[in-house]
Amino acid sequence: MSDASDSSAAGPIRAIDVIRKKRDGLELSRAEIESLIGGYTLGEIPDYQMSAWLMVALLKGLSRAETAALTDSMLHSGEVLDLSGFSAPKIDKHSTGGVGDKTSLVLAPLAAAGGLLVPMISGRGLGHTGGTLDKLESIPGFNVQLSLARFREVLHACGCAMIGQTAEIAPADRKLYSLRDVTGTVESPYLICASIMSKKLAEGVDGLVLDVKTGTGAFMKTDEDAAFLAELMVETGQRMGKKMVALITDMDQPLGLRVGNSLEVEEILDILCGQGPEDLRQLCIELAAWMFHLGGRTNTVADGKTLADHLIRSGKALDKFRQMVSLQGGDARSIDDPKRLPHAKHTADIVSPRSGFVSAIQSEMVGTACVVLGGGREKKEDAVDPAVGIVLHKKVCDHVAARETLCTIVYNSESRAAHARKLLEQSYTITDAPPAPRKLIHRIIPEPSQRARR
Amino acid sequence: MSDASDSSAAGPIRAIDVIRKKRDGLELSRAEIESLIGGYTLGEIPDYQMSAWLMVALLKGLSRAETAALTDSMLHSGEVLDLSGFSAPKIDKHSTGGVGDKTSLVLAPLAAAGGLLVPMISGRGLGHTGGTLDKLESIPGFNVQLSLARFREVLHACGCAMIGQTAEIAPADRKLYSLRDVTGTVESPYLICASIMSKKLAEGVDGLVLDVKTGTGAFMKTDEDAAFLAELMVETGQRMGKKMVALITDMDQPLGLRVGNSLEVEEILDILCGQGPEDLRQLCIELAAWMFHLGGRTNTVADGKTLADHLIRSGKALDKFRQMVSLQGGDARSIDDPKRLPHAKHTADIVSPRSGFVSAIQSEMVGTACVVLGGGREKKEDAVDPAVGIVLHKKVCDHVAARETLCTIVYNSESRAAHARKLLEQSYTITDAPPAPRKLIHRIIPEPSQRARR
Repeated sequence: MSDASDSSAAGPIRAIDVIRKKRDGLELSRAEIESLIGGYTLGEIPDYQMSAWLMVALLKGLSRAETAALTDSMLHSGEVLDLSGFSAPKIDKHSTGGVGDKTSLVLAPLAAAGGLLVPMISGRGLGHTGGTLDKLESIPGFNVQLSLARFREVLHACGCAMIGQTAEIAPADRKLYSLRDVTGTVESPYLICASIMSKKLAEGVDGLVLDVKTGTGAFMKTDEDAAFLAELMVETGQRMGKKMVALITDMDQPLGLRVGNSLEVEEILDILCGQGPEDLRQLCIELAAWMFHLGGRTNTVADGKTLADHLIRSGKALDKFRQMVSLQGGDARSIDDPKRLPHAKHTADIVSPRSGFVSAIQSEMVGTACVVLGGGREKKEDAVDPAVGIVLHKKVCDHVAARETLCTIVYNSESRAAHARKLLEQSYTITDAPPAPRKLIHRIIPEPSQRARR
Repeated sequence: MSDASDSSAAGPIRAIDVIRKKRDGLELSRAEIESLIGGYTLGEIPDYQMSAWLMVALLKGLSRAETAALTDSMLHSGEVLDLSGFSAPKIDKHSTGGVGDKTSLVLAPLAAAGGLLVPMISGRGLGHTGGTLDKLESIPGFNVQLSLARFREVLHACGCAMIGQTAEIAPADRKLYSLRDVTGTVESPYLICASIMSKKLAEGVDGLVLDVKTGTGAFMKTDEDAAFLAELMVETGQRMGKKMVALITDMDQPLGLRVGNSLEVEEILDILCGQGPEDLRQLCIELAAWMFHLGGRTNTVADGKTLADHLIRSGKALDKFRQMVSLQGGDARSIDDPKRLPHAKHTADIVSPRSGFVSAIQSEMVGTACVVLGGGREKKEDAVDPAVGIVLHKKVCDHVAARETLCTIVYNSESRAAHARKLLEQSYTITDAPPAPRKLIHRIIPEPSQRARR
């Protein structure tokens, strides 16, 4: 019952004391957090102590200073890219993930075409949300596993490159994420912030545009939760000297009309050709405009939109994408001839049981239907079928007649399609009156008044 | 960011889901707690998941039903003694631990002399509090590591036996306690309750008298904290069909006048001979009276006190102790000739710097001084010197003249004595006026009104 483990005033920092200090409501110092993350990365602090600390952090929360120290410790657990040899402003974008969210594939070439350097390190899909790497790999030959040396070469040649996380980048985050996944400590905005920001800042960027999704299909279900996470990430980045902005954007229905890897590549090709669905086009233009503004390419965000629009209409953004695909080993001919992308054998339509208005689409269910078809992963080890997915014909607020097609299943397996059909039939809600329209962009953080003061 | 680990309605109970359910403020079912403790005992649930759960339990607290289920699961992780072949009422006592607390050595033979069966399984000292096993082992030859078979034989022969925890008893507690010690999850009344009660109920007793210490020298510093833990343990025992009472007793200064293993054995021999310090004698009589009352040997606690007093005056309690020592391999001659107990080579007095009244004695410092002398353990592996310790000459409220002796250090090493002297000089506070006296017994739980209703 006695306490034989009280810390002495002097001596090295012990994990047990850091756990107990935070447990008892005291703020940890930067040195204490660095000792914890450093020791854990080296394997000197065991999983069972780290998981106890993670749970304290989740339940008690972290201060802004603690969050910044945690992010910094995780960032410096591995290599931080030195892109100081590149003269262009280095700006990236990160999305917290959603269904049909394929903006990265537009933004990297679009921003690079406008003179920014975009060293984008992305993740794979897990659960109901897709992953940028899986989408890129549906382009025949595209290699996302470049060495950091080759990554620099591609950046040098075309201004953008898109790869997966390497062993050198934020090893503490990789180790911590695996532990969080099995200890109930994923759902903490502080730990999410440190995880995202440590990886993104390891890219050596000058600034970062965050796309924080909100709504039924997002990790953050409410605007309040999304704004909390956005503010945390913006402040953490600013403390580390980065130019930061976060857009809180709608994920109450899938983004665009296509969900599934090669289907989404086809859709971003439409966008890069000045076509494609309006919501996706608008979001890409908005995010690109903020990238241009943060990077100092335009004085205003409005000018950034004009520039983005011009780069698409002129074909320069598509040229840049073609160049990047080619440099990363992909079949550039598939860019101009999407028939060369993987295609599934069968399609089947889901029709509306009645006439009315689409009042809701459960994004999470649509995402899960895509996983069920083989287009995503239930476990990390699962292989992905690049060709399958869902094409939406109706979105929220659209009018639909009885027996009119709501969406089409694109599939290779009848049994998987049958399962996906059940999910998709439940995912649409049809009502007599149209719902109140939702804005695509809910908020921008920092608010204009705060931005002016900086 | 997505959650791929949601539990399905059916299927086995997963540790991750139990952690998350408790984390989100929901009450766990008995089956969920059993699955967690059972899986952990078998090594199927890793330390890192259990430590996350322990931290949730510490920070969120457990309901009474959860506490009972946890206790029960830990109890049934190992063997529960079946003492149904013994006709005598089986009653034990447990103390949450303090400095100079040697009541167990009086109570086991005293209660057995009064017709109770006392199957006492005790612990060793760690930190500033002493351990019953270390005290017993200062009697030459005394064996605390009996097999459970030999334990039953001793119980049969003399009605009491005192041993250490065996591998068969509550293995989940042993494993959990080691983990709690290194993950900052010791200080939870719910986890403390489950740990104590699972071990004590494994003894197969009908009832249990709890001595919950309160004050600066105790684990629970306030009466409120002590009462909270006491109520938790009493209710947990009652839910499992046991007769329960808890006495909240004072630990604002050491109990009795002697601290140190063989010194404490000498003091309990005084008590068993009808002598010794008043506070220790009074507490032993009170605890024994409650044991007799719970065991149905007397109708009232007052009658229990009379019985305890008689058993001491008649020499029957001392006879029982002599018998138990002999049956457990100890040198029974040392009972009648304490010179045969280990004695240290040197003594040194600590004198008062001024005249006045002793207004406080820091028990924790006195306990630490005993550890420093070699009489206790800083780490589990440390050996203990049975002979060393401290003899107090003045206690709280006593008048003291300038240069009068406050206490005597009994030691074998000059350097250790010098360190202990510094602690002991700081442990006494002398003031002009005497302090308000503190009662030895602060509260009894359940309160008389609640006891009457049962």
